[in-house]
Amino acid sequence: MPDPRSGGPLVSEIGEAELLARILPLLPAAAAATTGPGDDAAVVGTTDGRFVVTTDLMVHGPDFRLAWSTPWELGWKAAATNLSDVAAMGARPTALVVAIAATPSLPVEALEQFAVGLRDACESLAPGCGVVGGDLSVSDTFTIAVTAFGDLDGRPPVLRSGARVGDVVAVSGDLGRAAAGLRLLFSKGVDDDGRPDAGRAAALRERDGDVVSAQFAPRPPIGDGVLAAAAGATAMLDLSDGLGLDASRLATASGVGIDLDLDALGPDPVLAIGGGEDHSLLATFPPGTILPGGFRRIGEVVASPVGAVLRDGEPLDPRGWDPYSGWDGAIG
Amino acid sequence: MPDPRSGGPLVSEIGEAELLARILPLLPAAAAATTGPGDDAAVVGTTDGRFVVTTDLMVHGPDFRLAWSTPWELGWKAAATNLSDVAAMGARPTALVVAIAATPSLPVEALEQFAVGLRDACESLAPGCGVVGGDLSVSDTFTIAVTAFGDLDGRPPVLRSGARVGDVVAVSGDLGRAAAGLRLLFSKGVDDDGRPDAGRAAALRERDGDVVSAQFAPRPPIGDGVLAAAAGATAMLDLSDGLGLDASRLATASGVGIDLDLDALGPDPVLAIGGGEDHSLLATFPPGTILPGGFRRIGEVVASPVGAVLRDGEPLDPRGWDPYSGWDGAIG
Repeated sequence: MPDPRSGGPLVSEIGEAELLARILPLLPAAAAATTGPGDDAAVVGTTDGRFVVTTDLMVHGPDFRLAWSTPWELGWKAAATNLSDVAAMGARPTALVVAIAATPSLPVEALEQFAVGLRDACESLAPGCGVVGGDLSVSDTFTIAVTAFGDLDGRPPVLRSGARVGDVVAVSGDLGRAAAGLRLLFSKGVDDDGRPDAGRAAALRERDGDVVSAQFAPRPPIGDGVLAAAAGATAMLDLSDGLGLDASRLATASGVGIDLDLDALGPDPVLAIGGGEDHSLLATFPPGTILPGGFRRIGEVVASPVGAVLRDGEPLDPRGWDPYSGWDGAIG
Repeated sequence: MPDPRSGGPLVSEIGEAELLARILPLLPAAAAATTGPGDDAAVVGTTDGRFVVTTDLMVHGPDFRLAWSTPWELGWKAAATNLSDVAAMGARPTALVVAIAATPSLPVEALEQFAVGLRDACESLAPGCGVVGGDLSVSDTFTIAVTAFGDLDGRPPVLRSGARVGDVVAVSGDLGRAAAGLRLLFSKGVDDDGRPDAGRAAALRERDGDVVSAQFAPRPPIGDGVLAAAAGATAMLDLSDGLGLDASRLATASGVGIDLDLDALGPDPVLAIGGGEDHSLLATFPPGTILPGGFRRIGEVVASPVGAVLRDGEPLDPRGWDPYSGWDGAIG
């Protein structure tokens, strides 16, 4: 977070026109846009006469804290998490619109770094995807609203509802690392009163940078969404609320059960199942499919109980696997 | 605003799944959606391989106050103002995504009424347009983020930059009525300390319902956007910041000046020029065009000064026409 006392202007000190003049050049262009930012609306081309759309809010407090995340990380994460929802449909991300309500005391430099984070995420995770429009407002609560678009290039979308008994259950991306980072931050990134502390978070970045990065700047396997669709994935979703809960959503939508192999979930299956914000892709493939990209087998689709997630054939009690139980979510 | 003590549950008292189960059935369906809400993303069809997109934030405080607006009006206005930006491109609105950050103490009934307002606005102003996705979050500041989509049906978009010297300047919709409503609310809809007062605002609704409605539930001439495009409009924009400022934006983008006929601006040209939030359509047409729909002539495109707005040939000093000068915008 740039220091508000460092001398640069605050959001409340320059007009909207100057703010846009500073931010717009930092944003990535979208290859598919035929009319970009600056008019009442943008115009974006599609290859097959359809577009994929998803929207997500990030609110200071419940979703992020400026004492912990840098503005660059916020921009990165705002892009990455929305791109991941597009990828989970089997689509190629093409464009974003970004609306920000900034606090009056936010340094303009923070919004510039936010824009650079957005750009870096697009360029790194979904080349060609860019920002085609947005809105700037002022609020007591720093709030970020991103809407992301994708192109299916003629393929059918991969829904949550297509898994069939006997399909292989596979995942691409991390399981539990973002949650490990958040657990670390809640236990050691806070001051003695339990409030997020920038200094202690910085120390954690030095020591445990990998899990802290997984939380603040996730790298979802965006390209694997299209690869999964091309390989015949029968169902897919973005893991945002933890493998256990999200797998049960896929199972419910498909009218099947899912049996996870505990051995395939890494060294900490508790976190792998209960941890949220992985933004990995969970997909099901017909038996015998050569799994594409970074997908690895973690289980199998079973007939019953419908909507249930099992581990090695035994019922999984979601509450028994909740790594957050006993935490005070209100702290910080 | 439903009374929080009326017995219905608050947002903080029911889970996200139950909240969605109550709200989703109230939302209008989009005729163009092939995959609607419920998956990671929606899929929307286009008729010509392109989509129009615009996004807008409404933040409690700067943009609305629950002591004044009903939740139904918020839903209506959130839809109407975004549909107007789509219309200003010459496009037909097809779909919306809506993200809401509600305060924990907001009655669930308020969100239901918000959804009904959204639905009524879509059905009334842009039949066939519906909600294809969204997000629900919690915040200390009630915040609404809407992204709207439109279809050009094969026509080129009508940009701000196409006005030519000699074109007729025309407007469809009200001028200054929304600002008159806001002025009334700021002067007589507040308590003795200048804070928005629900009781006094209710009295104003009784007496001056037309201008109060123009502010809280505007009825932009959405269909006139397509009619203007079909009639050959050379430039168009949505009047959100006042005719004077928005006309100068169109003039600057087009490299021309605009000369307004004072007589054509109604009984209160000050409010017509300075008032914001009209969400009327300002467009330019080649000379001799039979003006379509509700468009009426209010001036002419001139060669110079570039970017300037004149009235009857005399330079317009925007500050001299600001009906808000002297107000304390922070009050309320």
